[in-house]
Amino acid sequence: MAELLLSRRDLDFLLYDWLGAEELIARERFAEHDRETFDAVLDLAQELAARHFAPHNRRNDVEEPRFDGERVVLHPEVGAALKVFVDSGLMAAAMDHDLGGQQLPTLLANACTAWFQAANVGTAAYPFLTVANANLLAVYGTSEQRERLVRPLAAGRFFGTMCLSEPQAGSSLADVRTTAEPRPDGGYRLFGTKMWISGGDHELSENIVHLVLARTPGAPAGVRGLSLFAVPKYLVAADGSLGERNDVVLAGLNHKMGYRGTVNTVLNFGEGRHRPGGEPGAVGELVGELHQGLACMFHMMNEARTGVGLGAAALGYTGYLHALEYARSRPQGRPLTGRDPSAPQLPIVGHPDVRRLLLAQKSYVEGALALGLYCSRLIDEQRTAPDPAARAAAGQLLEVLTPVAKSWPSQWCLAANDLAIQVHGGYGYTRDHPVEQFYRDNRLNAIHEGTHGIQALDLLGRKVVRGGGAGLAVLLDAFAATAARAAQLGGEAGQFAAALEAAAGRVRHTTGVLWASGDPEVALPNASVYLEAVGHVVLAWIWLEQYLALGGADSAFHHGKRQAARWFFRVELPRTGPQFDLLDALDRTAADTPSEWF
Amino acid sequence: MAELLLSRRDLDFLLYDWLGAEELIARERFAEHDRETFDAVLDLAQELAARHFAPHNRRNDVEEPRFDGERVVLHPEVGAALKVFVDSGLMAAAMDHDLGGQQLPTLLANACTAWFQAANVGTAAYPFLTVANANLLAVYGTSEQRERLVRPLAAGRFFGTMCLSEPQAGSSLADVRTTAEPRPDGGYRLFGTKMWISGGDHELSENIVHLVLARTPGAPAGVRGLSLFAVPKYLVAADGSLGERNDVVLAGLNHKMGYRGTVNTVLNFGEGRHRPGGEPGAVGELVGELHQGLACMFHMMNEARTGVGLGAAALGYTGYLHALEYARSRPQGRPLTGRDPSAPQLPIVGHPDVRRLLLAQKSYVEGALALGLYCSRLIDEQRTAPDPAARAAAGQLLEVLTPVAKSWPSQWCLAANDLAIQVHGGYGYTRDHPVEQFYRDNRLNAIHEGTHGIQALDLLGRKVVRGGGAGLAVLLDAFAATAARAAQLGGEAGQFAAALEAAAGRVRHTTGVLWASGDPEVALPNASVYLEAVGHVVLAWIWLEQYLALGGADSAFHHGKRQAARWFFRVELPRTGPQFDLLDALDRTAADTPSEWF
Repeated sequence: MAELLLSRRDLDFLLYDWLGAEELIARERFAEHDRETFDAVLDLAQELAARHFAPHNRRNDVEEPRFDGERVVLHPEVGAALKVFVDSGLMAAAMDHDLGGQQLPTLLANACTAWFQAANVGTAAYPFLTVANANLLAVYGTSEQRERLVRPLAAGRFFGTMCLSEPQAGSSLADVRTTAEPRPDGGYRLFGTKMWISGGDHELSENIVHLVLARTPGAPAGVRGLSLFAVPKYLVAADGSLGERNDVVLAGLNHKMGYRGTVNTVLNFGEGRHRPGGEPGAVGELVGELHQGLACMFHMMNEARTGVGLGAAALGYTGYLHALEYARSRPQGRPLTGRDPSAPQLPIVGHPDVRRLLLAQKSYVEGALALGLYCSRLIDEQRTAPDPAARAAAGQLLEVLTPVAKSWPSQWCLAANDLAIQVHGGYGYTRDHPVEQFYRDNRLNAIHEGTHGIQALDLLGRKVVRGGGAGLAVLLDAFAATAARAAQLGGEAGQFAAALEAAAGRVRHTTGVLWASGDPEVALPNASVYLEAVGHVVLAWIWLEQYLALGGADSAFHHGKRQAARWFFRVELPRTGPQFDLLDALDRTAADTPSEWF
Repeated sequence: MAELLLSRRDLDFLLYDWLGAEELIARERFAEHDRETFDAVLDLAQELAARHFAPHNRRNDVEEPRFDGERVVLHPEVGAALKVFVDSGLMAAAMDHDLGGQQLPTLLANACTAWFQAANVGTAAYPFLTVANANLLAVYGTSEQRERLVRPLAAGRFFGTMCLSEPQAGSSLADVRTTAEPRPDGGYRLFGTKMWISGGDHELSENIVHLVLARTPGAPAGVRGLSLFAVPKYLVAADGSLGERNDVVLAGLNHKMGYRGTVNTVLNFGEGRHRPGGEPGAVGELVGELHQGLACMFHMMNEARTGVGLGAAALGYTGYLHALEYARSRPQGRPLTGRDPSAPQLPIVGHPDVRRLLLAQKSYVEGALALGLYCSRLIDEQRTAPDPAARAAAGQLLEVLTPVAKSWPSQWCLAANDLAIQVHGGYGYTRDHPVEQFYRDNRLNAIHEGTHGIQALDLLGRKVVRGGGAGLAVLLDAFAATAARAAQLGGEAGQFAAALEAAAGRVRHTTGVLWASGDPEVALPNASVYLEAVGHVVLAWIWLEQYLALGGADSAFHHGKRQAARWFFRVELPRTGPQFDLLDALDRTAADTPSEWF
């Protein structure tokens, strides 16, 4: 089963041959590890994903979570799988030793995560939301909160959620209406409704810690008035024991096209069903500084968005491997020439058009996984590089790459899932094969954690212009450094270098054209086109990086990687030409269409 | 409700202002009609689709057909809606008077069909398969078969299916194994298994007439040995009365991602459950000439494939209208400049990025509907033009357009549905809104009636090279004629004309490059890229055609059409540049990738 989830051969290449995972062992934070512990944790993740997550992936979709009037009912295999996961210690893979964690590099932890996402993205969401929640609390919480809340999260006794959106405030967090009223004891009481809360209610854990954006009385309007609160389902006493039921109440379930295994909820805070301490409101405690709620959230955004991109990559990857297996085993049709009907049928991988569908998928999914792991490596670099300048540089590159790392896999690994269905023909459209579910599941990734359009505004409106264009410069420097290495090799690598340099030149030029006026109304209407074009250039760079890491090796694996790189440079990168042309023309066709013309 | 299915304003424009529907009244076949009867039938279709088909579209998806051990159980609203449909006479809208039909132009009949496909593609499939079946039998059947089989099909007493595929023979019909054994009475007995049979079993009608491709003893190998047989579920006596149960038996249901309302079956012929006349085998009667089965099917292919394209267009269109309504009513966020958080939120149609998502959809769905109706008009022209040369020319253009009319809407109206989800954000991903269903439903259209890859081989391997390149010449002549009219107007029309001419030049050049060697192994590996590039050029032509038909009118409708045309020429047509470049390079990256490199 594992061989249809991800390619371990590819993962090993990415981690060790390319991203230098072993170099991290020299860092103090990872000093207890070595190649063997890295391999062992990857083995463990691969094994648990295949044995405990993959088998119920379809059942978790068909028998989706429901509310029986009293409680949320999940497929029983979800809880069983998560118990195994928690017992394995993987929940705290990257967390600090003093919280019970294994203090592994984020690079390794994210590689492990990808196995579970490929196997069963619905079940995998519960622990990964919990990890994100715990990481945020570990950074912004007090030492007391770390002990009382983070430790049980790291141990998997508590699970966690992120409560940002509301029915009237999705992309626009400025419009959050949930209020947090201070109490004399220094605590808060929350009132409001949160929407799209994954893992918002269940009985998988002893407790659920909600991290909630809310507005305090007299706070400034907009996002600058938002603060962050930890609101547990059951109150947690100073000694860590669980107390009263808090007034966080399930108001409904959202029923989705895919990702069905993850219960998605509407939650009411302080509606009055429960009265902890005899008073109205959901008991919450401030996390971080007052009015810094969004800043706290944004600090975690790079990890969360890289995680979404990796999830998209994992779904694309498993779809590709399923399509490949099908293409090798399904006989149908004959060669383009010599169509002797009495000759045996070819396995469809023998048809050029099917190879085209497969090579496109390979270039998308291996590229996306590589990008996600590259960003994961930057997270480690930002945290642990010995040189402060290297830490800062890694952080800057991570900032500018994050919207691409989130949105590119969400777009192109969904495209890969679409092609995986096509390889299967009619069979791929049935629920007897898993690819239709991957396609439904993956469609979420362009929406949650900031839509495609929000990522585009983040990239063009913030990241590349930050520091007078320093964000863009960091990205272009990264392209240039790789291109320089490739150019020295000459030959095919030199050709790719030249293509990357030309594309980087277009990124530089187009960014300048868009911002020449300094007017967001001029720069931003086609931000999504910019995101897509820059995304393809980033992936060309990632493919050149991989190409260089292959060295002169000539196994089938290495040849296949090179072929996917060729595909990307020959077929994919040229797509950006018309996109840059459109941007350079400051096209306003859509922007200037009045509403009544539609 | 109707206003969220299709735009009647657009349909009227396409039919009357552009395609000259009223001119057809001068033809003898349509002499009984006038504009009023055309409008009345459109009103009827619109009304029935909105009142009887749309309301159960979601329920037809959620409560999909099932087999209870004895019979196929459909949602009860399906039968109720189809009774209304049959009673309306729309089943036989385009059929001959002497069969009980209304003898309407195919153009009008297909416009009616689009209403039902937009409203409920699952329920609509039953009558439209029946119409395709009846049309084939009406052409190839004997006059006795017309009376005995076609008349009850036209009346909706019988429903029909098409039985081509088998589990081991999907795209490769050469591998059909179902056999038809001749009997002394001139009849046949069939044995075999058919796969993917929509409407293969149900109790919606008194009888089901299966049209089955099968191989007779001693027939040539491959598709040249296939003959076509009518195999009714219940035998039909000479006087039209129903007799014994035939040995056509449901072997299973296929459970699909979308299009769930249409029962999709595996059927066994002659497995022995029934023994009509005391003998083994399913009783079948030959339709057309022996060994001409595929030719009969192909004769109907232009209509069937145009119908698939129209269905894709209809799903894209209704998704667009839903997204537009949502965008006008959903407040979220503020303008790109002046983000005062105390200002009221904008309806999202006010955001440039949302307008971009909407205008792209508009250009896809209105373009696809226009193309489908243009092809429908060609079917009428081929059948009824007074001048035989005009009939032949229409037929030639229809031949070369058909793979595009099938595949382009299947690709780009699915893309439109994807964008419609994106406009809705998280809400679009839930089953509380219909767009996620449209997206699932529409995904089928690139698979059935010949996959995208099969359409590509049809276009590049057959249609454009037919008659020494006559097929291509017909297409290029059509482009040139439109461009010449536009060039005369100058201004924006002249710019579009120049762009279309340049693109047409690339089509001509690239086709020559691909076939310079005369070797299919050289020409065809990137046939799908060719199909996609030519498809976009065809749509640019269709948009220029519409643009010209707008004349100087300046209502919001007319402005919106022009804006969608601008979008197509500015944003869409340029996508073809890199595709033609790749084709001109005779790229073999995918074709030359050995299986073991994946």
